[in-house]
Amino acid sequence: MPFKSLEELRAACHDLPAGDDDAAAAVAARQNTLTKPQGSLGRLEATAAWLARWQGRAMPKLDRTKIFVFAGNHGVTAKGVSAFPAEVTVQMVANFSHGGAAINQLARVAGAELEVIALDLDHPTGDFTETAAMDEAAFLAAVSTGYDAVGEDIDLVCFGEMGIGNTTPAAAISAALFGGGAEKWTGRGTGVDDQGLRRKVEVIEAGLARHAAALSDPLAIAACLGGRELAAILGGVLAARHRNVPVLLDGFVCTAAAAPLGRLHPQGLAHTIAAHVSAEAGHRSLLEALGLPPLLDLGMRLGEGSGAAVAVNIVRAALECHARMASFAEAGVSDK
Amino acid sequence: MPFKSLEELRAACHDLPAGDDDAAAAVAARQNTLTKPQGSLGRLEATAAWLARWQGRAMPKLDRTKIFVFAGNHGVTAKGVSAFPAEVTVQMVANFSHGGAAINQLARVAGAELEVIALDLDHPTGDFTETAAMDEAAFLAAVSTGYDAVGEDIDLVCFGEMGIGNTTPAAAISAALFGGGAEKWTGRGTGVDDQGLRRKVEVIEAGLARHAAALSDPLAIAACLGGRELAAILGGVLAARHRNVPVLLDGFVCTAAAAPLGRLHPQGLAHTIAAHVSAEAGHRSLLEALGLPPLLDLGMRLGEGSGAAVAVNIVRAALECHARMASFAEAGVSDK
Repeated sequence: MPFKSLEELRAACHDLPAGDDDAAAAVAARQNTLTKPQGSLGRLEATAAWLARWQGRAMPKLDRTKIFVFAGNHGVTAKGVSAFPAEVTVQMVANFSHGGAAINQLARVAGAELEVIALDLDHPTGDFTETAAMDEAAFLAAVSTGYDAVGEDIDLVCFGEMGIGNTTPAAAISAALFGGGAEKWTGRGTGVDDQGLRRKVEVIEAGLARHAAALSDPLAIAACLGGRELAAILGGVLAARHRNVPVLLDGFVCTAAAAPLGRLHPQGLAHTIAAHVSAEAGHRSLLEALGLPPLLDLGMRLGEGSGAAVAVNIVRAALECHARMASFAEAGVSDK
Repeated sequence: MPFKSLEELRAACHDLPAGDDDAAAAVAARQNTLTKPQGSLGRLEATAAWLARWQGRAMPKLDRTKIFVFAGNHGVTAKGVSAFPAEVTVQMVANFSHGGAAINQLARVAGAELEVIALDLDHPTGDFTETAAMDEAAFLAAVSTGYDAVGEDIDLVCFGEMGIGNTTPAAAISAALFGGGAEKWTGRGTGVDDQGLRRKVEVIEAGLARHAAALSDPLAIAACLGGRELAAILGGVLAARHRNVPVLLDGFVCTAAAAPLGRLHPQGLAHTIAAHVSAEAGHRSLLEALGLPPLLDLGMRLGEGSGAAVAVNIVRAALECHARMASFAEAGVSDK
């Protein structure tokens, strides 16, 4: 287990490698020689430079893209915060392994490997209105699972999650990290009605009040208010930074899971791109708070890494243009 | 040649098949049985229904996607409206055939066939400040080339263009169709400076004044102010409607090329999706005027069908989720 104490984890969050400026500059210089008006590929050009910076390669590659979906269960579902029963988490994990979920189809279209990691589904986290979601040992175990999953042999990694009820911890983490009150961050998740939405806001307010003493520390927030799949994503995003793997974040839950790293280090999420902005209420505000402009805005709100998977081919388009377009000189095209 | 007179073409623009409501309804009904909260795939769900409606198939397919890039030259370049010399059009057509342009890479990533059709590059259109860009025969020939290119054996078609100077006719067509003055629709194209931009506005104003008598007819606008590659796109978009092929429109020039069909028939562009909103100044306003919300917003402004090509995998993602996800019953997942 890579992290045996919160302080070891905290040190790893502070000790982040900077990006490779030379590789990014080499990409920008090459872009300006290719047969197109300078800058005309817009975010595709910036995305190629981002890949180079965080892979540490002047000519980035995408031979191996991997999507991790972490699954967890949540004690707070006992409070009636989700439109679906908690047993759907394990049922959907089975659906993933049989290839029937959205992410299975989207991974195939993305040319990405899919790995689903279920975290102790038989033991939901604590109900955060009454106790910490995870004690230190459970939190570190979940973070470590995510950290160990991400190998150096991956060129791009997407994180997704499955966990009935998990927009509630995501909203609680967001409120604890960025303030503004529970209502700002609380949405309908899989589809609660107005009454469910009011209940959800109350539950999150209760959690914030219960753990008020811990809310100055982003890691304590993740442990007290989060969930195992969110902690695993935090570990995975951290590992990706240490191992030169650029990250596509998915929706609200995934972004909230990674957000503590963005609070612990001013450049903590610089190696990530927000693949999309979801329709879940708090996501747009959370991306703004983190300074992450989304690539896509398709009104998706499924989780599972689905938005990140859709964005993989945008990154691939960026890379292929960069790597394989002819220069003005090579093509005999008159420059401006 | 399918259109021997403007009136034959006009009749074809008015006589448009409606979409297949039953196919679209079948898609919507199936979507609601699949293992996801209803509506949670956002625009992917709407896109699957759109494919079904315009292919006329309850289970749409994407076995064959084709990208057409039409190329043309413009007499109005003599007025200094582009940052690049006019010979770049033919140079870029050579670049397309050698596989060195952005669209070559993007077509490969999209899994699409690419066909480039150069329209009489040795004979630029007339300078529209002095004469009609095309006489009736030249206009009908270009429209017919586009119309004949699109076969019924295509499941999805993207249109792109190459033509140095062609954001000038695109802005002129937009201004003529929707008003608001030349300045509203005029952008920097491949990168003209402030002086070039002012010159471009003046050129467009001169064209609008020169052809004022013709501006009540969308087809006359396309002939007087447009270009051969724009006319070919208009023909291609029309053919796609008659042949049950859904269309991805590309950027400003492509949208302006198709816009006359949207003016001639209230549902004229219903079988199209705007793949993206480009960074070229007039595009966002043009999409709003046509009621076409873009799928992507990536700051691209290259043309060549590049934005449409990037969007193909979004459509593919929509289709694969629709066609291959398991239902709640099949997967044994508890419904809400």
